[in-house]
Amino acid sequence: MIAFMILYTYNHFKTDILTLGHQCEPFEPDTVVAIARGGMTLAHALSMYMNIRNLQSIRIESYDEDRQRDTVTIFGECDFSRSRRVLIVDDIVDSGKTLQALLPILSQNYPDILFKSAALFTKTTALIQPDYSLHEATDWIDFFWERDFLKSNLL
Amino acid sequence: MIAFMILYTYNHFKTDILTLGHQCEPFEPDTVVAIARGGMTLAHALSMYMNIRNLQSIRIESYDEDRQRDTVTIFGECDFSRSRRVLIVDDIVDSGKTLQALLPILSQNYPDILFKSAALFTKTTALIQPDYSLHEATDWIDFFWERDFLKSNLL
Repeated sequence: MIAFMILYTYNHFKTDILTLGHQCEPFEPDTVVAIARGGMTLAHALSMYMNIRNLQSIRIESYDEDRQRDTVTIFGECDFSRSRRVLIVDDIVDSGKTLQALLPILSQNYPDILFKSAALFTKTTALIQPDYSLHEATDWIDFFWERDFLKSNLL
Repeated sequence: MIAFMILYTYNHFKTDILTLGHQCEPFEPDTVVAIARGGMTLAHALSMYMNIRNLQSIRIESYDEDRQRDTVTIFGECDFSRSRRVLIVDDIVDSGKTLQALLPILSQNYPDILFKSAALFTKTTALIQPDYSLHEATDWIDFFWERDFLKSNLL
């Protein structure tokens, strides 16, 4: 089997935000929550597109180095005191374990809030599909935020 | 008086992360906290540069539209249960009111944690100067995340 890698540049991202933002807009979220770290830059961009000032993040550990762990741990707590419609944002829904663990907890803790999810890439084999997604993830995605800020670029 | 505007592109940012990351590295932070919204993309990039998985955000409202308000409100709470050295990140330290309000509260709530701050741009007139900063802000900065994801780009 040959493994391919998609070089996902800032220019791709810029175009994608306009498309994904357009998709998410009818949901009319009042809050955007990034799943850190991968969803941070994306959530920032979507919050700018949709002009949503309530931008937060949540930290989830589901990977141990390159091997996926069986347990998903959620760190930190969001402030939804002014929220009614919350968009949860991640860069890629791979196994889907993160979303599958997170969404029921959020819905249980905040029964009056409507949660939807968005991602740039999703695997068809994911345990859960996000409400909004642009691309099917078939190959390894090399996101610009995982490549452009490495110390090796200094050399 | 003529007002100038600096077009701050992704390419500037890419170069700046390598310099600012290099500056922040001796502090050896174990946690990076973005001040949302402006600090989100920057904090993500710095956490990638320094290989810090503990990336969180805090939301502060200190501006009302384009006019700065007198009050600073902090929303949400971070999880510092595993943190000892925390880097607080914002895109620009303008009046300095945000940092001046935030840092004493953090130091009071977490007396065992060392906090330092980083920004891309700082005004010399700011009430507080961040520990790490790259540029003096003399003109209006048009950050790429405030420009590239606007719906008007679809036209």
